[in-house]
Amino acid sequence: MKEVNEKDKVVIDKLLGIEDFKEIEVRVDDTDLMQVVHSNKYLNYFDDGFISFVQKLNKDCGALHKEGIVFPVRKVEIEYLRSATFGDKILIHTRVIKVGNTSITLAMDCYKNNKSKDTLLVKGTIVRLIMDMNNNNLIKITDFFRDFNQ
Amino acid sequence: MKEVNEKDKVVIDKLLGIEDFKEIEVRVDDTDLMQVVHSNKYLNYFDDGFISFVQKLNKDCGALHKEGIVFPVRKVEIEYLRSATFGDKILIHTRVIKVGNTSITLAMDCYKNNKSKDTLLVKGTIVRLIMDMNNNNLIKITDFFRDFNQ
Amino acid sequence: MKEVNEKDKVVIDKLLGIEDFKEIEVRVDDTDLMQVVHSNKYLNYFDDGFISFVQKLNKDCGALHKEGIVFPVRKVEIEYLRSATFGDKILIHTRVIKVGNTSITLAMDCYKNNKSKDTLLVKGTIVRLIMDMNNNNLIKITDFFRDFNQ
Amino acid sequence: MKEVNEKDKVVIDKLLGIEDFKEIEVRVDDTDLMQVVHSNKYLNYFDDGFISFVQKLNKDCGALHKEGIVFPVRKVEIEYLRSATFGDKILIHTRVIKVGNTSITLAMDCYKNNKSKDTLLVKGTIVRLIMDMNNNNLIKITDFFRDFNQ
Repeated sequence: MKEVNEKDKVVIDKLLGIEDFKEIEVRVDDTDLMQVVHSNKYLNYFDDGFISFVQKLNKDCGALHKEGIVFPVRKVEIEYLRSATFGDKILIHTRVIKVGNTSITLAMDCYKNNKSKDTLLVKGTIVRLIMDMNNNNLIKITDFFRDFNQ
Repeated sequence: MKEVNEKDKVVIDKLLGIEDFKEIEVRVDDTDLMQVVHSNKYLNYFDDGFISFVQKLNKDCGALHKEGIVFPVRKVEIEYLRSATFGDKILIHTRVIKVGNTSITLAMDCYKNNKSKDTLLVKGTIVRLIMDMNNNNLIKITDFFRDFNQ
Repeated sequence: MKEVNEKDKVVIDKLLGIEDFKEIEVRVDDTDLMQVVHSNKYLNYFDDGFISFVQKLNKDCGALHKEGIVFPVRKVEIEYLRSATFGDKILIHTRVIKVGNTSITLAMDCYKNNKSKDTLLVKGTIVRLIMDMNNNNLIKITDFFRDFNQ
Repeated sequence: MKEVNEKDKVVIDKLLGIEDFKEIEVRVDDTDLMQVVHSNKYLNYFDDGFISFVQKLNKDCGALHKEGIVFPVRKVEIEYLRSATFGDKILIHTRVIKVGNTSITLAMDCYKNNKSKDTLLVKGTIVRLIMDMNNNNLIKITDFFRDFNQ
């Protein structure tokens, strides 16, 4: 990573200190014939966790999407430890672990119903970009989050 | 419909008087390239509304599913009036409109964010069965809901 | 319905004579904890059937979508008769049953693996519009399908 | 990894030499408001690729599922390089890269429409187990695939 200027460093340090918890309910349709949540649905939960994280920084993702600002996934890693099913609530724990120039890396852990370590369902890491669909340009992470630093 | 005995009639009358409101958040993945919620996702919202309705009657759908009690759809009609998208909250309004021997018919209306008539998204009607997956038998509706009548 | 001119009538009569068969494979993720295809997935199969029908008329739906031409659902009715599951192939039978000014009504029947009547899974009716997302205008059905009439 | 006996080694070597190509069509509902295939859908395509791979070894996944034999995901890594959308065909290239005692690791690459390197969409790695849902026991990989070695 190239050298980071002082202003960016302040934003990055702030981002690295933020965590968010979001609870969602498993839908019937999230399950498959194994009678547990299908592996792909955790990417939906990661969406929900990321959106909740961004809202926490006073950014309205719904409004952003309407302006054409989106958050494409560049990379994801998921380790599946336990299964969840319909009737369960999922707690998504989101933390920033790395801020690149145009990418942000987050740890995404999902717990069943509560935060205790024995109910960790999946451990994930996701790399996201911030893109302006109007011109397909990537937005610099520290620019996007600069104003929350006030 | 065959004649209904007095005990069943009491349950049916109670059911016909119940309505439920459930609010859910649109997921990014609920939308498609038209940039609005895909037509099939309202069937997920109808699931959510029905589950909320059943929970209101002191039935835990998650626990019921674990015992093998499920609620298959027999018939559905949906009229799409307006579109919703990511960032919207959907309010699902559920009312019982007919109680058959082994089927229950519900009106399922979805509103955007609030209950005012001008934001009605879809009007739906759904016929559901109650089935015991252990023996694939249908459960009589008034039997299933009898104990809530106390 | 208002009076239909002669040119439109020719297109409509042709459309009413067309039927299409499309076979798809059930995905694992199409099933839910009831271990059968979830009720909402038939709307995906109806998409597949409609697209195959439109392709049959020499219209490339992928290319059309890229130009902003989409086919929103105005209304749907589905009757669920039998269940399908992972491992099954679904045959979607599409027929035009009514051509309105800006809407087209299709019968959508899904069969398991073959066309024999005893394996009918769902009977559906769907009303679709044809919309230009560039200006949100509805396209007249007979205009859209006129050139296939040659 | 513990020492591997001679019979297992033969099965493992055979597995490591197998590759499979499966082509699927993108569904409308696979896309989201970014107008491209949602990140989670590649896990469905990985399902399709794995099933095609297993079928190639004369195992009928549909029949296996009916007996309770399933293939849960233990771990997945996906790198997203290019986007696909409705109208595209996806070619899934599946190769075994490691055979553990009760887990199998596969490389899952998805290409747009053809095999040429310039249209690689995602590069994935997935670790799957083979489980008997009747007793929740894991099945030894070389036992499951032994009979194909003939």
